[in-house]
Amino acid sequence: MRNLKLTIAYDGTNYSGWQRQRNAVTIQGEIEKVLARLCNTHIDLHGAGRTDAGVHALAMIAHFQTDSNISDSDFKRALNSILPEAIRIIAAEEVDSSFHSRFSATAKTYFYSIETAPVQDPFSRLFTLHFPQQLDPEKINQCLDILTGSHDFASFEASGSRDTTLTTGRGSVRTIFTATFEETSATSYRFMFRGDGFLRHMVRNLVGTLLDVGRGRTTVEGFKTILAAKNRASAGPTAPAHGLFLQEVSY
Amino acid sequence: MRNLKLTIAYDGTNYSGWQRQRNAVTIQGEIEKVLARLCNTHIDLHGAGRTDAGVHALAMIAHFQTDSNISDSDFKRALNSILPEAIRIIAAEEVDSSFHSRFSATAKTYFYSIETAPVQDPFSRLFTLHFPQQLDPEKINQCLDILTGSHDFASFEASGSRDTTLTTGRGSVRTIFTATFEETSATSYRFMFRGDGFLRHMVRNLVGTLLDVGRGRTTVEGFKTILAAKNRASAGPTAPAHGLFLQEVSY
Repeated sequence: MRNLKLTIAYDGTNYSGWQRQRNAVTIQGEIEKVLARLCNTHIDLHGAGRTDAGVHALAMIAHFQTDSNISDSDFKRALNSILPEAIRIIAAEEVDSSFHSRFSATAKTYFYSIETAPVQDPFSRLFTLHFPQQLDPEKINQCLDILTGSHDFASFEASGSRDTTLTTGRGSVRTIFTATFEETSATSYRFMFRGDGFLRHMVRNLVGTLLDVGRGRTTVEGFKTILAAKNRASAGPTAPAHGLFLQEVSY
Repeated sequence: MRNLKLTIAYDGTNYSGWQRQRNAVTIQGEIEKVLARLCNTHIDLHGAGRTDAGVHALAMIAHFQTDSNISDSDFKRALNSILPEAIRIIAAEEVDSSFHSRFSATAKTYFYSIETAPVQDPFSRLFTLHFPQQLDPEKINQCLDILTGSHDFASFEASGSRDTTLTTGRGSVRTIFTATFEETSATSYRFMFRGDGFLRHMVRNLVGTLLDVGRGRTTVEGFKTILAAKNRASAGPTAPAHGLFLQEVSY
């Protein structure tokens, strides 16, 4: 069996997330449908992770096994010619049989875009959260310093969401390698989080809570308390999906 | 009566163009609907021009007259809070009663974006034409030099489209002040056209024909002949609407 690795970019706006679902259009579902057509058999496509409905990806990684003798470049070409334009195969390459998109991953990087101007330009509205509030980057950066490293992120995990058959014994402890908050224009900002893994809704819950800090609704001390509470109820709101991008999966 | 000038940005993807239509959703129609609600009476909104279905604008200009005592800034705020996010009022300002968005305009600027890479990123697909062909910028620039100045552009006018009640005696003669073709990345390009006015489909017909030149289907001499023919049948195809933006209206 050949093991093929796909690098996939998608505009998640009109999809019910990555994961295959019986009655909803999803990224995994759309790609598996085309792969089945190309390979004349059902293909299981394994993603490096799931993204929620409305979340985008610059480079999701997935792999599948096949006996097909379609070349890597023909897979790429054929997938792109059949898939909707919102889903693009950036690369298709045969990899060692030991490669697994999820288990081999060493880090994931997400970013989240914010526009604070009173009026948002209509071309960025599907990819950037419109948040017309004055933000204090200093305070947000203090919280990002607190976050960096290994912590129990239970306060930022969607409640009742963990699939226990998939946990790897580390519960809700994750390690954030880097977390930044960058000014991308006079009125726009971008959060970036790089870590060994992220709990369900973790990035969006972090962003929602950090925006509360940025606008003065929560103090830096309050943020520390929220992290220490290990209780979702103590944290801020879940930021909307459309500002979030999976930027990179590292191996 | 007060005379109010609006500067409007819109993502034209899901609209049947600028102009009000009985059974279609249009930019003018959507804004007039909100203005009627705010002013409690029908308002005629006069645009600087029309854009086709799917064409975008960074700064369309329009004006309307009203007895309402809603302030300029309240008009802007109220319009933006009710209009769909794809249509944004960038500015609302009271102007002299002699100002007319169309008759006072001295120039309009359009740009048209092209991506030539084999795979287009899914986030630009609604705003950039995917045209995976090798282009020769040198040849395109030679044609742009030929275009610049006053010409009868009948070869680039949508056939049977002119509303004779609106012509100003110049027929299909227009003046192009500036026309450029710029490389915006290793694989992407942008046409820019600035002129005193543009016939229906003129920019899209120019782009379609210039891309034929760029890919070697039409020679520079051939382009000259097309312009001189003053006959739509001699020119190339109409480029799709979604790569086109109205960038600026000058007064």
